[in-house]
Amino acid sequence: MKTIGVGVIGFGTVGTGVVRLLLEDPARLEEAAGCRLELRHVCDIDLTRPRGVAVPQALLTDKVDRIINDPAVQVAVETVGGTTFAVDLMKRLLAAGKDVVTANKAALAKRGPELFEAARKAGRSISFEASCAAGIPIIRALRDGLVANRITALTGILNGTCNYILTQMSTTGASYEDSLAAAQKLGYAEADPALDVSGGDTGHKLAILAGLAFGAEVNLDDIYVEGIVGVDASDIVYGAQLGYVLKLLAVGRVAEAVPFSSDKGAVPISQQREMGTAPHLSLRVHPTFVAAGSPLATVLGVDNAVLVTGHAVGDTFYVGPGAGEMPTASSIVADIIDAAIGRAKITFDHAAWLAGRRRRLPVLPVQEVRSRYYLRFVVLDMPGVLASLAGVLGRHEISVASVLQHESKRAESVPVVITTHMAREGDVTAALEEIRRLPMVTGPIVRIRMLT
Amino acid sequence: MKTIGVGVIGFGTVGTGVVRLLLEDPARLEEAAGCRLELRHVCDIDLTRPRGVAVPQALLTDKVDRIINDPAVQVAVETVGGTTFAVDLMKRLLAAGKDVVTANKAALAKRGPELFEAARKAGRSISFEASCAAGIPIIRALRDGLVANRITALTGILNGTCNYILTQMSTTGASYEDSLAAAQKLGYAEADPALDVSGGDTGHKLAILAGLAFGAEVNLDDIYVEGIVGVDASDIVYGAQLGYVLKLLAVGRVAEAVPFSSDKGAVPISQQREMGTAPHLSLRVHPTFVAAGSPLATVLGVDNAVLVTGHAVGDTFYVGPGAGEMPTASSIVADIIDAAIGRAKITFDHAAWLAGRRRRLPVLPVQEVRSRYYLRFVVLDMPGVLASLAGVLGRHEISVASVLQHESKRAESVPVVITTHMAREGDVTAALEEIRRLPMVTGPIVRIRMLT
Repeated sequence: MKTIGVGVIGFGTVGTGVVRLLLEDPARLEEAAGCRLELRHVCDIDLTRPRGVAVPQALLTDKVDRIINDPAVQVAVETVGGTTFAVDLMKRLLAAGKDVVTANKAALAKRGPELFEAARKAGRSISFEASCAAGIPIIRALRDGLVANRITALTGILNGTCNYILTQMSTTGASYEDSLAAAQKLGYAEADPALDVSGGDTGHKLAILAGLAFGAEVNLDDIYVEGIVGVDASDIVYGAQLGYVLKLLAVGRVAEAVPFSSDKGAVPISQQREMGTAPHLSLRVHPTFVAAGSPLATVLGVDNAVLVTGHAVGDTFYVGPGAGEMPTASSIVADIIDAAIGRAKITFDHAAWLAGRRRRLPVLPVQEVRSRYYLRFVVLDMPGVLASLAGVLGRHEISVASVLQHESKRAESVPVVITTHMAREGDVTAALEEIRRLPMVTGPIVRIRMLT
Repeated sequence: MKTIGVGVIGFGTVGTGVVRLLLEDPARLEEAAGCRLELRHVCDIDLTRPRGVAVPQALLTDKVDRIINDPAVQVAVETVGGTTFAVDLMKRLLAAGKDVVTANKAALAKRGPELFEAARKAGRSISFEASCAAGIPIIRALRDGLVANRITALTGILNGTCNYILTQMSTTGASYEDSLAAAQKLGYAEADPALDVSGGDTGHKLAILAGLAFGAEVNLDDIYVEGIVGVDASDIVYGAQLGYVLKLLAVGRVAEAVPFSSDKGAVPISQQREMGTAPHLSLRVHPTFVAAGSPLATVLGVDNAVLVTGHAVGDTFYVGPGAGEMPTASSIVADIIDAAIGRAKITFDHAAWLAGRRRRLPVLPVQEVRSRYYLRFVVLDMPGVLASLAGVLGRHEISVASVLQHESKRAESVPVVITTHMAREGDVTAALEEIRRLPMVTGPIVRIRMLT
């Protein structure tokens, strides 16, 4: 069997997992892969911190050039992270003739095209299964397994930290702050959790998955992002009473330019757009109520999940650990093997999105998105309030689906929860603007989208 | 872009789906695949039956030799089914230098090794994503995405007909017979549903998936198979009262020869086996109670699902349509593309199980399997009955976890449901043998395994 040299750059959590997998049972890996993987270098600026894995001293280095200049290294793993040094590093590795494996979603989401271009120029490949949903082989599913489909929708729980926090809040009734603290204590959330709880990390992953799924150029700026910071425990309780569970979802949808005609002939594009049928992308990340018992609602804790709809296959659903040393390493080592046996290169040369054949679809402004809504108002407990709220909504063509108002005990102000039928985001924004100015409205208004 | 010739043999439901996908939008497929797929022949003995898809007359043939002898056909799809003609056909196609794509689980489960051998001899490949769980890319997940893992368990709902029948029974309270009739009316069950409801089809799929997951040689005879024929609606009702849902599961597990030692040194194999830690496979198909709300319990209707446990990744879970023209075609066309761009050949040459590097692990006899059990007895309503039942179970080292006995109205005989803690199948068999002979037992005993 052939021997393929591997270099790992970045000896943090993920890098350690990769090294552990490569060293723990090389014979089994060789058997499974059909080639021998030889770990030749492990590079990090800090080589003294204990990682709990025995690496021969000769493999350790703090100089990336040792990997770049070693012709026996055919596959290089980048687990440094970030969008500057890591990107330059990957370009140098590619230029030196190495296939690159990375989990760096930020780099791929922000500077993917130039990285892919560098790989094409060098005649090499970049693989990134671990960049989205860690251990779930979702990149392969979209890229290989579902390749015959026109994918029309992709809905994902893509951040383990956020899903852990929301699961905690749902199951224990804890506040956002306490749940975040619990996540940090367990190591599920970083000391600075901003990128996770802001929805930014989920946005990076959606950029990658939606691009691949829809074969489209996706700019990070095109994704509407709302995080979970400060989600109120009361909304989770009211949602539960209505039969819903709160999740931070990434939603990507594409409406295709399918030949569309009515009895009276072809429907003009302007009207199609109104009907939601003109070709466009819709890309958004936001807290979302999903029906209790539905597949996405059953995904708990740090698990991730992706629901994919293809025109031929219908719905397929993927669940698994969305973070962690070994789940992430599982996907990285799979990519190493893919590169080692020459499959990654074939994939990279052929698959549309990787090869740079990307569609440019207009992105639907978020105000044009149609959805159902959960709205919570704090209002004075007095006659005519509900009529006023419903009146404003009605004037903006927003139809009420349900109302939840408990009897008030002593309080002057009471919460009123209204769910709507399908409505246009822009109409809801305008209606809420108007309601905010009503004298009986005494607190901030909460708007949470419902999955439809 | 390269043009790759494709021949489809078998113009039934699945073949029609493949033809439909290949012809509906070739430009999109070319874009996605990075090569042009040219459908050159569609072969069937019946060319007159309308299929609802427009195939140019020149492509239709009733002679497989036209495909075998056309050097421009590089990928051949076999959707004929069966384990004799289809196997000979695949061998001839391989010998003629064509990569083969098939959904034929029976042929793969019964004659897989000789087919793979024929492919190796010819220097070609066989791809079979559609053979298990139709539209779910589970073969790719096990073979590529999870390749770095030692897979320890695989649990699947692999037959859409059975899952539809059990879902019907659970949700409507209908009998087995009425639910089967409903499945037949909707086209979910064949006129002769024997292969589905007997568990045989699920066994075929388990043979393939377990072989691939565990890298092991799996003989169909090694799989214990019990179907759903005659499942009683009352057991589904009692199960629901206890918090369980009935599913036909395929269960594959492997206990590895992990270095195993205690304070007193290495544990001898005989004792390991007793402790369930000696290397062995456990392979079985049977109706199984799974906890309501757990992932497998949420899989309804004709959907399929597979839960895979890997030592690095942990649990990953895959759900999707397990049957049907277009979901099956989705996987077949993915395989055609894999073969067309040369990836299938690389996979076939390297992946352990495909390349013929297979472990031979002893299979644990079903009587040695440990599980929890749901037991239903019909007994005379008289003092001391429960004590007698529990006494026999206790003497066989079977510990009772719960008892369900409703007050009897008029009937002389009443049902008593007992769930057990973990017990050895052989002990349960012996205990039931003894209980069957008790004078107060007036009807057949039902034994259903519970997922643990």
